[in-house]
Amino acid sequence: MISAIVLGTGNVGTHLINTFLKNSSVELIQVYSRKKSSLISFEDSVDTTSSIDNLKDADVYIIAISDDSISEFSSHLRGKDKFVVHTSGSASLNALKNNGDKGVFYPLQTFSKKCPVNFKTIPICIETENPAKLILLEELANSISENVFNIDSEQRKRLHVAAVFANNFVNHLYKIGFDICKENTIPFETLYPLITETAQKIVHTNPSTIQTGPAYRNDTKTINAHLKLLSGEQRKIYQLLTKSIQKTYGEKL
Amino acid sequence: MISAIVLGTGNVGTHLINTFLKNSSVELIQVYSRKKSSLISFEDSVDTTSSIDNLKDADVYIIAISDDSISEFSSHLRGKDKFVVHTSGSASLNALKNNGDKGVFYPLQTFSKKCPVNFKTIPICIETENPAKLILLEELANSISENVFNIDSEQRKRLHVAAVFANNFVNHLYKIGFDICKENTIPFETLYPLITETAQKIVHTNPSTIQTGPAYRNDTKTINAHLKLLSGEQRKIYQLLTKSIQKTYGEKL
Repeated sequence: MISAIVLGTGNVGTHLINTFLKNSSVELIQVYSRKKSSLISFEDSVDTTSSIDNLKDADVYIIAISDDSISEFSSHLRGKDKFVVHTSGSASLNALKNNGDKGVFYPLQTFSKKCPVNFKTIPICIETENPAKLILLEELANSISENVFNIDSEQRKRLHVAAVFANNFVNHLYKIGFDICKENTIPFETLYPLITETAQKIVHTNPSTIQTGPAYRNDTKTINAHLKLLSGEQRKIYQLLTKSIQKTYGEKL
Repeated sequence: MISAIVLGTGNVGTHLINTFLKNSSVELIQVYSRKKSSLISFEDSVDTTSSIDNLKDADVYIIAISDDSISEFSSHLRGKDKFVVHTSGSASLNALKNNGDKGVFYPLQTFSKKCPVNFKTIPICIETENPAKLILLEELANSISENVFNIDSEQRKRLHVAAVFANNFVNHLYKIGFDICKENTIPFETLYPLITETAQKIVHTNPSTIQTGPAYRNDTKTINAHLKLLSGEQRKIYQLLTKSIQKTYGEKL
């Protein structure tokens, strides 16, 4: 059985702790948080500490803290036998400054503390330079998820950019759709099936094969009618994305 | 029972025909298409014609043809007793040039002929100026869908713009995510759960309450690192959407 300590009780940390506690293949040895108050909810289920000096032994130390703090915090995890991994999409492997083995254990999903998550379907991107530790990380990842990928630091940086497009920016476009509906007293529910269908379609299809719309059809009459209804940021975004779609598919014709 | 004739056998027409044929509350009297070859697959199930002069009587004539052809085509549907509706998101009610009652019956979903659709969940936006015909349209829409909305022409124009953002543009962002993965030999599957979760989340939540990411956090270090990895259109889109998110949420702080 793999023994693990989770350091950090933010969104990712909390979900990892809860998942490990329910999992018989992982022994969660301890939970660390700088703030004692953050540990209260875990005290009944697992040993907790707010002092780095009190950390117990474990096969792997999983740091789930903000990107900017990874280097400084990991430098305090002394001992050559400590295998330390972080959970960040954008920090490289070498952001870790412990003197033992380093690794990455990056669950690619949006987390919020309140919403329960099913780790089974969450992709976990792992990386480490020590082959023996890679086997350990694979075993740990496979014990909670069915989607484990070996992704190195350079790939992970780019994957993070791709995720910004597919998640953060997509959500902002949803917001614009929401605002347009609200301003015109149209129920936003009218768009739900379209939104979920669009997301589900690409699970089996290259998105470029299912592009539709006035930009794709080069339907300048509709594009101009739409532009007349828009102003400010919304108009700029409409123009740039329309141009980009036209450029992408126009070249193919 | 409402009797209907569908005119047009494109994506929307085909799905409407198949849905009406399976529905006991609607009597599909006839299917019209300009091209005889498009009618072959329906000949065993329903009366078909490729001549406007041979159209039978029905409670409602549903035109499912391209936006640009609606005016010209509807002008040939003579007879004051003919209630003619189109199925377009962007054409106004008055695009119809028949001399009887006019209406709109707009199913808001992306259709492709090959993929089966479940009309039950598809929002249908209806409009007509004659209150008696509105009852008829409501009955027809309710017989195939659980999501029927009264949306006038001005609202529908804007709803169509919102749908361009939430569907066409979102799909283009998926494509960019796909391209970034492909260029870096990262399996695109790593992004599936994030994409479907993002879409499902907003079904119960205002998208602005769940915005995350470097732009939202004003994390300029990560934004600059991402920009270094991007060029051309991708870079421009990243910059504009980042600026827009910063402007949207910065103002709230």
